Amino acid sequence: MDNLLSHKNSGDPIIVKVKDIDIGREKKVVISGPCAVEDYDTMILLAKKLKSCGVNILRGGAFKPRTSPYDFQGLEEKGLEILKAVREEVNIPISTEIMDPRDIEKSLEYIDVIQVGSRNMYNYSLLKEIGRLKTPVILKRGISATIKEWLCAAEYILSGGNENVIFCERGIRTFEPYTRNTLDLNAVAFIKNNYRLPIIVDPSHGTGVRELVYPMSLASIAAGADGLIIESHLNPDKSISDAKQTISVDTLCDIINKIK
Amino acid sequence: MDNLLSHKNSGDPIIVKVKDIDIGREKKVVISGPCAVEDYDTMILLAKKLKSCGVNILRGGAFKPRTSPYDFQGLEEKGLEILKAVREEVNIPISTEIMDPRDIEKSLEYIDVIQVGSRNMYNYSLLKEIGRLKTPVILKRGISATIKEWLCAAEYILSGGNENVIFCERGIRTFEPYTRNTLDLNAVAFIKNNYRLPIIVDPSHGTGVRELVYPMSLASIAAGADGLIIESHLNPDKSISDAKQTISVDTLCDIINKIK
Amino acid sequence: MDNLLSHKNSGDPIIVKVKDIDIGREKKVVISGPCAVEDYDTMILLAKKLKSCGVNILRGGAFKPRTSPYDFQGLEEKGLEILKAVREEVNIPISTEIMDPRDIEKSLEYIDVIQVGSRNMYNYSLLKEIGRLKTPVILKRGISATIKEWLCAAEYILSGGNENVIFCERGIRTFEPYTRNTLDLNAVAFIKNNYRLPIIVDPSHGTGVRELVYPMSLASIAAGADGLIIESHLNPDKSISDAKQTISVDTLCDIINKIK
Amino acid sequence: MDNLLSHKNSGDPIIVKVKDIDIGREKKVVISGPCAVEDYDTMILLAKKLKSCGVNILRGGAFKPRTSPYDFQGLEEKGLEILKAVREEVNIPISTEIMDPRDIEKSLEYIDVIQVGSRNMYNYSLLKEIGRLKTPVILKRGISATIKEWLCAAEYILSGGNENVIFCERGIRTFEPYTRNTLDLNAVAFIKNNYRLPIIVDPSHGTGVRELVYPMSLASIAAGADGLIIESHLNPDKSISDAKQTISVDTLCDIINKIK
Repeated sequence: MDNLLSHKNSGDPIIVKVKDIDIGREKKVVISGPCAVEDYDTMILLAKKLKSCGVNILRGGAFKPRTSPYDFQGLEEKGLEILKAVREEVNIPISTEIMDPRDIEKSLEYIDVIQVGSRNMYNYSLLKEIGRLKTPVILKRGISATIKEWLCAAEYILSGGNENVIFCERGIRTFEPYTRNTLDLNAVAFIKNNYRLPIIVDPSHGTGVRELVYPMSLASIAAGADGLIIESHLNPDKSISDAKQTISVDTLCDIINKIK
Repeated sequence: MDNLLSHKNSGDPIIVKVKDIDIGREKKVVISGPCAVEDYDTMILLAKKLKSCGVNILRGGAFKPRTSPYDFQGLEEKGLEILKAVREEVNIPISTEIMDPRDIEKSLEYIDVIQVGSRNMYNYSLLKEIGRLKTPVILKRGISATIKEWLCAAEYILSGGNENVIFCERGIRTFEPYTRNTLDLNAVAFIKNNYRLPIIVDPSHGTGVRELVYPMSLASIAAGADGLIIESHLNPDKSISDAKQTISVDTLCDIINKIK
Repeated sequence: MDNLLSHKNSGDPIIVKVKDIDIGREKKVVISGPCAVEDYDTMILLAKKLKSCGVNILRGGAFKPRTSPYDFQGLEEKGLEILKAVREEVNIPISTEIMDPRDIEKSLEYIDVIQVGSRNMYNYSLLKEIGRLKTPVILKRGISATIKEWLCAAEYILSGGNENVIFCERGIRTFEPYTRNTLDLNAVAFIKNNYRLPIIVDPSHGTGVRELVYPMSLASIAAGADGLIIESHLNPDKSISDAKQTISVDTLCDIINKIK
Repeated sequence: MDNLLSHKNSGDPIIVKVKDIDIGREKKVVISGPCAVEDYDTMILLAKKLKSCGVNILRGGAFKPRTSPYDFQGLEEKGLEILKAVREEVNIPISTEIMDPRDIEKSLEYIDVIQVGSRNMYNYSLLKEIGRLKTPVILKRGISATIKEWLCAAEYILSGGNENVIFCERGIRTFEPYTRNTLDLNAVAFIKNNYRLPIIVDPSHGTGVRELVYPMSLASIAAGADGLIIESHLNPDKSISDAKQTISVDTLCDIINKIK
């Protein structure tokens, strides 16, 4: 594994630039927003609060990969339009998940960072297509991907010519039922020590439990993470999806104050 | 889960027809072939032997999802051409994996059964596209997909209008290092008892160990499986990929004789 | 691992004798009874029915290792007394679990086969003590023990001088919530192929679901198991513990007829 | 689970006292020493260095539960004698693992804290015996124990009358092969939030990789742990067991300086 493009042997640490934000330097980066884009009014209000609190990038799902086809699948193009409008009004970079290689091109005018979700970490057609771009990409770990498989997924993008890859640890599937996933901070420390790409942590999916987001955010930073991606909402209990793991803006501000 | 289209409550058992073969009836179905299509001469020779031995459908990978982008990725279109030529000469239906929604249309003239591999079970864009066809599809279980997630993946296809879905249990990821995966025959018995789609088992990936393919083939049938999909090769040790779990034609014939 | 006493390299297959029953030969062995010994009247009635149906050894828990200290812990010595009385009246060998090295000596007059439960597979003090006896022992696999750890647990007994070890696969802990455990029949085929001790399967704990006990019993035998250990009850729904996975005597008779 | 003696509903937070050290207050506690007691000279030298560095309790294994019976099993009573001598000369409390209920009584004169190892978390005979004492006990989580099972194991001790229980998260078994275990800091934050017993973390077993001990120590404290238990050695590479995860005294001092 020490001959991979992502390994420290292959070159200097990579700093991923999203507009004027550097990911991978000492200063920690915070990405936040709702699980799914719901409507313009809510989004703009949330975005302003998050920005004033120190959030660097706004996230929000337009295309939602849901376990069941009968669940809400996201606002799709309409969601992208909302994100674009918010970006312009609030002046904050936007990150959203893309699931289909055929959606990439049209998404590029709306967003600044592509997310590859956990379910698509092994979707090599999607990764190869993203490898042809220069757009930064957050590559989430597959729910039971080994570290090796995750590194190799990054190589699909790097070997295509796109170096702007940010790893995102978001919890792995284990036998434990109390938490939605088991956040694997060992993997964060391991990658940070040996590889040259930045890595952030998603304590929302990584725990699935609202009250654990705060302590696990601090633990992630202590383990060496370059930043956090956290689901937040003006009214967490009313979130269309992932309500149980979504925190309020106030709690998010507390986390940012603590880590910065 | 008892309101799903795939549940027994929703209708009669579904028999999937591939040419004149019925999958889901008392007679067991055997699908076999090499992990990857290598060349025409080898493929035609193998196909003839397999057919004479009672194999119902020929499998062979043209597009290979590999953990590393630096490994052999399959012969792609050239592989499909070889499969088509073999189909015509030997008169045997063909099954192959499709990974990219953009490859589906061009593949349809070459193959009789689409495989969705384990890595793409959560690739909902791909599943939705396949849901628009009538072509039979083998839906492999994700490497750590729960039964519920697997059933819901099938719903993505069924709800689009394509009822020709065959489940394929291929082993799940556990802590055990001796075997590549842990074959979950509990899941086979559970689905067979409660759902109306046929289910087959892949003891090659499900064990990853050549000597275990024979006993686990028998165990799969005893647990209620409607058939088997097994990697075979004229010279297993020379197989380009998956050599350790690939069996000889002779062993395959023994399995077929035993189960039929 | 091929230098272990349990490996085929170290000698002929071991046949474990329990009175006039041989475990490890072609004829399959069936052990059955309730999860916990409840009272004499129920036990004697059940024992007679099981024996007439072909069950070889009667099982019943006197000491029950329960997750919570506040749950029923078994009838202890009183349970052993009941088992002894049933053994004399029905003339059937008895198997029960021992958890504490200090209970071994007093148990020997009551029982014919010692069970080491899944929770105590790593209890090396207990294993060493059993290694000093000649009494047959059923060594259940730890809930997340690797095959290697399980083999090594057997070595603790074998190296002490007691060769009468019977492996028992009873399901491993995975992420799947539908079944209590995932029955690992790969492990059964692997051990049967490479090691010289008999191995039986517990499809009751291995599935945790009553309707799966029948098909998984057949699958276990097809995978190469030398026998089965199954929880049964005169009135399964009234079983004090493990009711969901306990089958009726009728279903048990069906299984015995099918495998013999 | 909110009716357990260990739950916050049942009373005030419990502070476990080991001589003049309080475990469970704001000040973090550090326990360190070699995996196994090797000889007096090494132990005394190490103990002095550790104490001067701020280590609160000395650990060292006298009875070693090893996967294979053919591996070194510890110095047993001789190891206890060495620990006692070191305790007297260096004036530092001693913690060691006890595996057999029959060893408890004789151990009490040698040690200040009993460890229940991961393999014996389900050894209820041992737990009940320890419940009759007042001696503090470190209860390690079983390698694949759910949080519920772990809490219930503590109840076996608490319900016997011994309130001096310290939880120890030491990593759980997952599919990931790079690290020996996956350190589950979610569990630490969850228990700290909802239960009244102190909890410490073992980043040595929790990672199995020397270079990860430092970052994961910091992450453990950030997640809310009350202390750390870390394997250290004068010459880590020469450690009789667990060499790969054992750190030098210098690294340990760095960790202590950082967290205090």
